[in-house]
Amino acid sequence: MQETHVSLAQGNGGRYMRELIADVFARHLQNSLLDTHADAVILPWQGGQLMMTSDSFTVQPLEFPGGNIGSLAVHGTTNDLAVAGAIPYYLTLNALIEEGLEIALLERLIVSLAETARNLNVAVVAGDTKVVRRGEGGGLYLSMTGVGIRASYAALNMAQIRSGDVILVSGSVGNHGIAVMLAREQFGLRGELASDAASVLPLTQALWNLHGVRFMRDPTRGGLATVAHEISQYTGHTVQLQQAAIPILDTVQTVCDMLGYDPLYLACEGRVVAVVAAEYAETALKLWRALPQGQHAAIIGQIEIGKPRVILQTPLGGARLLEELEDDPLPRIC
Amino acid sequence: MQETHVSLAQGNGGRYMRELIADVFARHLQNSLLDTHADAVILPWQGGQLMMTSDSFTVQPLEFPGGNIGSLAVHGTTNDLAVAGAIPYYLTLNALIEEGLEIALLERLIVSLAETARNLNVAVVAGDTKVVRRGEGGGLYLSMTGVGIRASYAALNMAQIRSGDVILVSGSVGNHGIAVMLAREQFGLRGELASDAASVLPLTQALWNLHGVRFMRDPTRGGLATVAHEISQYTGHTVQLQQAAIPILDTVQTVCDMLGYDPLYLACEGRVVAVVAAEYAETALKLWRALPQGQHAAIIGQIEIGKPRVILQTPLGGARLLEELEDDPLPRIC
Repeated sequence: MQETHVSLAQGNGGRYMRELIADVFARHLQNSLLDTHADAVILPWQGGQLMMTSDSFTVQPLEFPGGNIGSLAVHGTTNDLAVAGAIPYYLTLNALIEEGLEIALLERLIVSLAETARNLNVAVVAGDTKVVRRGEGGGLYLSMTGVGIRASYAALNMAQIRSGDVILVSGSVGNHGIAVMLAREQFGLRGELASDAASVLPLTQALWNLHGVRFMRDPTRGGLATVAHEISQYTGHTVQLQQAAIPILDTVQTVCDMLGYDPLYLACEGRVVAVVAAEYAETALKLWRALPQGQHAAIIGQIEIGKPRVILQTPLGGARLLEELEDDPLPRIC
Repeated sequence: MQETHVSLAQGNGGRYMRELIADVFARHLQNSLLDTHADAVILPWQGGQLMMTSDSFTVQPLEFPGGNIGSLAVHGTTNDLAVAGAIPYYLTLNALIEEGLEIALLERLIVSLAETARNLNVAVVAGDTKVVRRGEGGGLYLSMTGVGIRASYAALNMAQIRSGDVILVSGSVGNHGIAVMLAREQFGLRGELASDAASVLPLTQALWNLHGVRFMRDPTRGGLATVAHEISQYTGHTVQLQQAAIPILDTVQTVCDMLGYDPLYLACEGRVVAVVAAEYAETALKLWRALPQGQHAAIIGQIEIGKPRVILQTPLGGARLLEELEDDPLPRIC
């Protein structure tokens, strides 16, 4: 079938589906484990503790400066393993394709996904495609599950957090959110800003063997403010953030000011928030700043005994309560 | 938020999303591993070979006689592990929810999914929800990845198939396809027919320790004819099927005759096709017929040296070439 756009017949289990999977998916994702003839694959396994995560991707538009839904899916899924202390090994991919999607675009996205996976030494070992009727999908949605092997010395989770701990961020926040927003062109703005979407594995690995590291998270949907809220709710403590210390690019701040967004609620896809015991915070900062991904890392706040809430200290000495996100500023951002 | 229908704000990473996940997902899927505060979970692991599979579900309507998209997701994913020779242990769940979906319906589906998982002793250990705008989704799509532990004595895959091998099916074909079609009501037909959707694990386990079992598959999208084609293409041999031997319910045949469908191309969600060495075929048949799921099991064909094609022997002594599926008879069937 010499079609340029995906048709329903490419989702039916028959010949056209087989060809689509062979031409667009298997060809680019090729690796020694992926077997499109098998119902399930055997995972080679070197021992140790397995870790598993899962995520869906609905970003719109499908391509944006600095990435696309394919590379984002790999980064997003492997980043969830990385912040939890695992080295990613295996991925599964589910593609929900809307009838009418341009096949050249689909292939570009899968090529990028495959390249991103190769660069991270992870293999897509199983997957599935479904085609839904025009009007029943948003072009392309991807779901991905990741399996990794636990490699961190310490247990990294919110239960480890203590009052007095310090909060670090690995780089400027909100770039991904604003880059995707500008790519939509619905706001009549144009900009050169690229998404920060990237693997955070070098950043998290740098801290795995450092004593005093309690917890790491990549601030995606809901941004830095949402991670701060999750921490305050889980621990029952107050999270204090120093506004002046939070790295935000001028472009991001300008667009936010124009449109009335708060960059602290916008998604990042290549940043890490870490909570570290106070006495190790400077060491953690140095380790991050030595990495290209962490040049703009900063200590931005601390955990304090108090009511579970998030307080932003302003440069002029004031304090503002950061509310938990309610209305969605920007759907389909990741 | 006392809403009755899903809103975009329930997908944004903030408070409403947290409440939706807590109330509808975590509450019903609760188990000792699932941790909605974690980016990735540690999988307890008893040793042995891991197997992994992945699938998406887009069935329309979301509820149909004999199942729904929630129970189907668990059956479909665990069945892919079962036919490959693995006992399912862990699942991940990605839910793509369209703005406006009734929350009571969503909860019913997740309750059913949770119950189906519990009955199979599998745990949903990680997941993700995304909400897309009205008109950008088909109500609800689910993606699921399954991890199991290999338990079959033999390697089960198409590379094991030899000419002379015999083909069995565990029960009547096409029930799922017709049940879903009737539930759509677009054809103005009504019927009591229930989907065959169920776990095939008892059926596959019964054959795991039998010598001569080469390959098993659940004939979902594209039905029995599509599995036959996959076998013929992979092996380069002819697949002969005996029409009179293939179990088909009268209701299924009648609806097919009325609408011009061929039941051999319609999805099953609780059947197994097995390829077995001729000398073990009768034993395999007996093992299946001893099970409630296999009462109507039958030997339906064999693999023969010849061109890669699928031939249907008719009761009157004729032969019909079964073409590979091209046009989609029925999208969103699974």
